[in-house]
Amino acid sequence: MSELKGACIIGQSGGPTSVINASALGVIEAALENSSITRVLGAEHGILGVLNDRLFDMAEEDPEELALLKYTPSSALGAGRYTMADPDLNDTDYKRILEIFKKYDVRYFFYNGGNDSMDTCNKISKYMQKVGYECRVMGVPKTIDNDLYGTDHCPGYASAAKYIATSCMEVYQDSRVYDTGMVAIIEIMGRHAGWLAASASLASAHGCGPDLIYLPETDFDMEQFLSDVDRIYKEKGNCLVAVSEGIHYPDGSFVAEACTSATDGFGHAQLGGLAPTLADLVKTRTGAKVRGIELSLLQRCGAHLASKTDIDESYMAGVAAVQSAVSGITDKMVGFERIMEDGKYVCNIKLLDLTDVANTEKKVPLEWINEAGNGMTQAYIDYVLPLIQGEPDRPMSNSLPRFAQLKKVYAK
Amino acid sequence: MSELKGACIIGQSGGPTSVINASALGVIEAALENSSITRVLGAEHGILGVLNDRLFDMAEEDPEELALLKYTPSSALGAGRYTMADPDLNDTDYKRILEIFKKYDVRYFFYNGGNDSMDTCNKISKYMQKVGYECRVMGVPKTIDNDLYGTDHCPGYASAAKYIATSCMEVYQDSRVYDTGMVAIIEIMGRHAGWLAASASLASAHGCGPDLIYLPETDFDMEQFLSDVDRIYKEKGNCLVAVSEGIHYPDGSFVAEACTSATDGFGHAQLGGLAPTLADLVKTRTGAKVRGIELSLLQRCGAHLASKTDIDESYMAGVAAVQSAVSGITDKMVGFERIMEDGKYVCNIKLLDLTDVANTEKKVPLEWINEAGNGMTQAYIDYVLPLIQGEPDRPMSNSLPRFAQLKKVYAK
Repeated sequence: MSELKGACIIGQSGGPTSVINASALGVIEAALENSSITRVLGAEHGILGVLNDRLFDMAEEDPEELALLKYTPSSALGAGRYTMADPDLNDTDYKRILEIFKKYDVRYFFYNGGNDSMDTCNKISKYMQKVGYECRVMGVPKTIDNDLYGTDHCPGYASAAKYIATSCMEVYQDSRVYDTGMVAIIEIMGRHAGWLAASASLASAHGCGPDLIYLPETDFDMEQFLSDVDRIYKEKGNCLVAVSEGIHYPDGSFVAEACTSATDGFGHAQLGGLAPTLADLVKTRTGAKVRGIELSLLQRCGAHLASKTDIDESYMAGVAAVQSAVSGITDKMVGFERIMEDGKYVCNIKLLDLTDVANTEKKVPLEWINEAGNGMTQAYIDYVLPLIQGEPDRPMSNSLPRFAQLKKVYAK
Repeated sequence: MSELKGACIIGQSGGPTSVINASALGVIEAALENSSITRVLGAEHGILGVLNDRLFDMAEEDPEELALLKYTPSSALGAGRYTMADPDLNDTDYKRILEIFKKYDVRYFFYNGGNDSMDTCNKISKYMQKVGYECRVMGVPKTIDNDLYGTDHCPGYASAAKYIATSCMEVYQDSRVYDTGMVAIIEIMGRHAGWLAASASLASAHGCGPDLIYLPETDFDMEQFLSDVDRIYKEKGNCLVAVSEGIHYPDGSFVAEACTSATDGFGHAQLGGLAPTLADLVKTRTGAKVRGIELSLLQRCGAHLASKTDIDESYMAGVAAVQSAVSGITDKMVGFERIMEDGKYVCNIKLLDLTDVANTEKKVPLEWINEAGNGMTQAYIDYVLPLIQGEPDRPMSNSLPRFAQLKKVYAK
């Protein structure tokens, strides 16, 4: 494979995570050091930055400030949720991207995101091939949802899992402090896959976690749920529940949506929400004091509880994307392969076809969910435990986080 | 003062904090070591444990496990919210307490709590004096609300403040990641005093915090609020807001209650809540994407973000209570006095009359709130910054918290 010289673009897309910037840093640092890559450009708000010609010159950043990206949550370059059209139906955006690629002599495109972003990557790459513009395209995975196909796990998942497990352990302590008892219901992200809610079981495995955990991988039965909570509350005087926002009835309708329409007659779709509504139903059924707690954005930006393993792997994924592309590889997403060496967890890089990744969603295996559909098995704990290990040595200022402050100089 | 020999009781009361157990540990360790104190008893669920004769023998605990209390959130002995009658009107409970005190030869009573708990302490002490039973009573302060009279600050406040500030910094990063912008509204505890909501300004002082902060110390003006948010959202494309749950209209009615009654026609008082309802109003006014985030119990049990200063001072308060009582002092609450030595923060112990503490509430000084009533001044930052300093070396197991597991053996 002959050397391909030119600029690279790194873009970030979709919902951010605690460690997506660690992956971006891996790309940026590896690209800045690589002699084949003549210039490193950061796209503002993902593909929109390319379409709008708003590209940051990453070489303008102070390397020490840049290095703080490893510990800075959310997407430092700005994220986009723009969906690209099918190029066979409408190639306007693709022509524009080609124009920008030519303008800056972009020969490497790295896109840091989830399912949809891999689809974007894939479409762009196929278009460039069709029009005969040489450009190597690599996907760098991220998603707290852990639902990308073909990889053992996804960068970002473990840090969110660690945040959720730690928070569940703390709420467990707090919610059973009174003589009168309490039911606490924790709502966790995850619309279609229950990986995040599953991580609450780490707290249970450590002696202070939810009694009940509900994932969208199985159908939700409201009567069974209320009866489960009532039973445990009567037995123990307390009950801690973790629910995925994506729990749904057998007909596929989300419980969250049913709750909203059932309890608000004013057409305010965002009011109420799953946790407070379940809390209200449980209160009526059990007579207990009940708290609904939504972990909301906190769970995906809680970088202070990031897993060092996750940070290191996320960085490694970014570096691997650059190294692979420079060596001649294109149209792949960087993935992870788990190897157990003498019982010790090792994470290796593997490369997956963008086409496969773009159209598949990985759910929690049903055999990792208990028979009653309200908890996780040891197999899941064994899977997730190595991923959350290690505390990052995060930089602080006045005992508060010191996040990266980028200059964001637009490329000329 | 002649030596008083006898058993001691330590009880915990009211809403827990991340560090109330550090204070309890201070009492327990100091009492176990002290030759005047013959036995150390822990009351289960505060004063209820005394009334119900459910007292733990703290000497039965493994010292190493006990030491983990320093890093274990919530009230390890169990908290109570039982309100004692006025002994002049009904002395049933007081007679029962006297009976238990005599049964175990209790000569020292340490009560770890907030305003109400200091009132309980005070009533018990006055009753014992009236009936001529010698018992020294000391209050050990705790409250995330920071509203105890006469002390520079309260154990528990700084750790909650640090949790709130860190979470605000992270949400700030997350909530301004898209090209389309967002308004995020963070609801923070504090029914009557705005100390906790004020701590969100630490995030702003560190470059990534709320644009607007509303405390219950000033009257809330909904129209002004919506106009403030709209202006900032139009200017910056994003807006982050911190509100105290206790914000109220000029007539004293809580905005949270008005919201609940206005939006829910089903009589479900817990549904909706302040943050989602404000979010809904802001959405209607600005057209922005809006998120309401309630920090809920997380902010008072987030021990993983505890301030080392807070932990150390909380422990010190417990030790000081024992030392004071043994030296002959009674009817006091341990408080803190701030001294600046060569510009360096030093925290000294001072003792406050229980009678004074029991009936007074300390609010945020109005001069620490900006003129517009939507932010804090530098004087508040200078006040709070020393309190949140230092990271505890918290024990971990599998990269998750390792909390104390007490045996809780009932005293015979």
